[in-house]
Amino acid sequence: EPPEFHIFGFEMDEGKILMVVFTACIILLTTVRIAYEKTKMKLYIPESALLIAIGLVIGGILVLFDTEWSRKIQGYLTFPPELIMYVFLPIIIFEAAYYLNRTAFVNNFLEIFSFATLGTVISTLLIGFPLFWLSTATITQLTFSESMTYASLVSAIDPVAVIAVMESMHVNDDLFYVCFGESTMNDGPAIVLFNLFMSLESLKDIDSVEIFGLAVAKFLVAILGAVFMSIFLSLCTCFISKFSYKIPSTESLLFLLTAMCIYVLADLCMFSGVIAVMVSAFMLQRYGEQNLQQESIISFKQLCKLLSSLCECVLFLDMGFQIAFISKNEKKVDWVFIVCVIIFCVVSRFIAVFAQIGVLNVRRGRIGKKFSWKEQLIFVWGGLRGGVSFALAKNQYLDKRKSNQVVFSTCMVILETIFVNGLSMRPVIKKLQIKLEPSLNNRISTKMMTKPIANLTQFAKVVCGHTSKLGQFMSWFDLALQKIFSNKEIVDRDLEENIQQVHELVIQTLLKQKRDQETFKKHNLKKKYMLMNPLE
Amino acid sequence: EPPEFHIFGFEMDEGKILMVVFTACIILLTTVRIAYEKTKMKLYIPESALLIAIGLVIGGILVLFDTEWSRKIQGYLTFPPELIMYVFLPIIIFEAAYYLNRTAFVNNFLEIFSFATLGTVISTLLIGFPLFWLSTATITQLTFSESMTYASLVSAIDPVAVIAVMESMHVNDDLFYVCFGESTMNDGPAIVLFNLFMSLESLKDIDSVEIFGLAVAKFLVAILGAVFMSIFLSLCTCFISKFSYKIPSTESLLFLLTAMCIYVLADLCMFSGVIAVMVSAFMLQRYGEQNLQQESIISFKQLCKLLSSLCECVLFLDMGFQIAFISKNEKKVDWVFIVCVIIFCVVSRFIAVFAQIGVLNVRRGRIGKKFSWKEQLIFVWGGLRGGVSFALAKNQYLDKRKSNQVVFSTCMVILETIFVNGLSMRPVIKKLQIKLEPSLNNRISTKMMTKPIANLTQFAKVVCGHTSKLGQFMSWFDLALQKIFSNKEIVDRDLEENIQQVHELVIQTLLKQKRDQETFKKHNLKKKYMLMNPLE
Repeated sequence: EPPEFHIFGFEMDEGKILMVVFTACIILLTTVRIAYEKTKMKLYIPESALLIAIGLVIGGILVLFDTEWSRKIQGYLTFPPELIMYVFLPIIIFEAAYYLNRTAFVNNFLEIFSFATLGTVISTLLIGFPLFWLSTATITQLTFSESMTYASLVSAIDPVAVIAVMESMHVNDDLFYVCFGESTMNDGPAIVLFNLFMSLESLKDIDSVEIFGLAVAKFLVAILGAVFMSIFLSLCTCFISKFSYKIPSTESLLFLLTAMCIYVLADLCMFSGVIAVMVSAFMLQRYGEQNLQQESIISFKQLCKLLSSLCECVLFLDMGFQIAFISKNEKKVDWVFIVCVIIFCVVSRFIAVFAQIGVLNVRRGRIGKKFSWKEQLIFVWGGLRGGVSFALAKNQYLDKRKSNQVVFSTCMVILETIFVNGLSMRPVIKKLQIKLEPSLNNRISTKMMTKPIANLTQFAKVVCGHTSKLGQFMSWFDLALQKIFSNKEIVDRDLEENIQQVHELVIQTLLKQKRDQETFKKHNLKKKYMLMNPLE
Repeated sequence: EPPEFHIFGFEMDEGKILMVVFTACIILLTTVRIAYEKTKMKLYIPESALLIAIGLVIGGILVLFDTEWSRKIQGYLTFPPELIMYVFLPIIIFEAAYYLNRTAFVNNFLEIFSFATLGTVISTLLIGFPLFWLSTATITQLTFSESMTYASLVSAIDPVAVIAVMESMHVNDDLFYVCFGESTMNDGPAIVLFNLFMSLESLKDIDSVEIFGLAVAKFLVAILGAVFMSIFLSLCTCFISKFSYKIPSTESLLFLLTAMCIYVLADLCMFSGVIAVMVSAFMLQRYGEQNLQQESIISFKQLCKLLSSLCECVLFLDMGFQIAFISKNEKKVDWVFIVCVIIFCVVSRFIAVFAQIGVLNVRRGRIGKKFSWKEQLIFVWGGLRGGVSFALAKNQYLDKRKSNQVVFSTCMVILETIFVNGLSMRPVIKKLQIKLEPSLNNRISTKMMTKPIANLTQFAKVVCGHTSKLGQFMSWFDLALQKIFSNKEIVDRDLEENIQQVHELVIQTLLKQKRDQETFKKHNLKKKYMLMNPLE
């Protein structure tokens, strides 16, 4: 039948209502974020904890009122895992790696690498073996292969959680970059260990030395494959972006899509996607950004920050929802198992950090940058678990009963680290009087000084440094790449920026002087007025 | 079975491959766009025509090789219509309305309104009646109600196509804004007529005067409802954005989501979504933009342009795909019907434009801005059909056979207008020697002068203008709204910008002088060198 004619009306279309609800939710979330930033809440609760709490509350309400409607909403609130894995995660890692303080990262590379590889292995062993020995006391009763697999997945430090908590604390660069670097790079080793232990049954006939060799080979393949693939594809994008000058914001899109494409491709080829995105961000920043217009650079930064903060928000919210939804299905909670896992996690982290830093401090002592025991404690605190562990727990090959227990206990570990560690981080930092990074960004004087100083350093490096053959070759190689893939050479732009910044400063000071004069005049007028009207 | 351990591997996961293909496609598209912008192609082919052609070719290849794979790809390439209607369309309209030259729009409002309402009615009648009279000669054989419904949907001028073609031509502001305004605002009347004629069967007992009344009432409800809802919700967002200062790019997200939310809400309440988005863009630009930081304003602009150009690209590509896919199912093409429709469209457009401008030129003649017959021809040329007609054609209530014919002939009309009109637009403009807008954006002197001149105009308006009671009230009301919803008053910011721009200019001139000096020195050195080496 043809439709009837209505002057007023309301079309009850599920898709449309869903979309209104969805956009309204994001607007509401943004409002919550604004409130969070404006009030003092920011000082006490990290955003990730707040969002998980919101997710838990909303999810809990939905689980309690178990009607058809609530089940439908639960379905909508369970974001497809592919979206989270292949869109949200690469964007967050890309943003963090692109706007990285490269010097601090390179200076601490040895620590980062050791934490990410050796640290993960130590942590896996220190969690896995005790868990297996205690398995008879638990309901879950994991076998050796299963407990080692679980130990490896629960050892994966989550970059998103670490970035969210550490960035808001303004800890100093060394602390931040070791934690950030560890959390991004240890996904690779953790996933290799996870796959290795999960397929331990099929490797039964092979002796343990060979298994060790297999693990190392896999690890090398995963990292090197990711690095080379990423370098090649990123340079292609840089080359394309060389010709996109004056086409509005094409590069922003190109860069982000390249990162996502590389991540998925690396994942397809069973390389480490996270490392591929990191390398891609480095390459694009070095050889691609020169091809952007000045305006595009600013807007690309804002776009990245916007997308990554949005993705983080949704990720944590979703984690809250998922934890609430999963708890519903949990009939008989294996508390012994959960408590054991949490204790083993904390202890193994403690041992791994102090043992490694003990050795690494020998080198650091020579350059006068030893990590104090207070800073080591912060590393222990920084071992936050999150989305990666959660995703792996869901993928672990187990029977239904064991799988439920494993996923639930992983949720508990995540909640423990994010709430206990996250909420106590600031008081601990305050108590231990850790050196914080002064937040300089907003002061004009620092804005003026950072770049010239960086340039002077660069100049000094060019003049006296690079005496080693390798260093000379690297800088020659870098220049050659710049010539091929970038529009301008990099030093030029820096100089230009300096001049612009100094001028900006002059303008702002002039404006400020003018404003001050005006307020001064106003005050004077007011005084005069009050003198004329003594009654007021 | 637990999985096996592999050192190398390639995971054939459909979702992942799809994502790689999808991102790679967008990267390819961007590369095509860069090539398009860099070469002279831009001067001869509008982007929309190029994209539809690409879509047609790819779609055609897929249709020719009719395997399982190609059918799967066809499924992926058929974007969900909800995505296009509720995400792409509002973004494109929002961007166009937000960065509108308001003065030109307001000055031509009478023309726009007349074209959008009266023009659509004239066009519908001039297409519908002949189509009904000729229906016996065609295969499709539409009834009276059906042919009028079809006439109304084929009368809807598509804003996306018009924006894409007219913007690249740089026609003068009066021409552009009449065409743009008409194309956005005539969707409302066209949809009202579409619904009215489609439900003509159920209104059989009512006499024609009453039907006319119903149509007018529906039209008023659709427009006024959209306007008031949009104003209310947009002001709410402005108010929220007042507090978001210093939280990076929150506003960009808020603004875009508000626009989308308003569009869908308006659609739910059966108001005109397009008009709601337009009003929302106006309100946000006037009272919301003051709450953004200077950097955010630039990056919001780039984000909008990026999103809208991406959406336009995908929209036209999709249209190409769809037309190719639909042609496959078409066994017996009703060419008589198609040719008739195309002729009626052109003739009715011609009559509607010349009749209306004939009357409207009386008023315009008084202010010395008469449209010449050449410019009227451009209006005839600018009647491009596109996505709106296509979407309505798919929604028309008809039996399967008629529906196929109707959708296919709509596709043909769209192709005709975009290819014939789009490709011949530039030669016609050149031949008729229409006044083009000089593209001034890139010259520094104009960058410096436009804003001060605008400010002087504003100042002059404040000093001498606004003598009418209504004008006074409006400016008082505007100020009050600014105080409630904006952080700063608007004139302040303009002044600041002026100062900044003048300083920027000074900097750039200084830089240029320096560069010139350097090149001069280099030349001198070369001359000296050549004098010293006369043999060279």
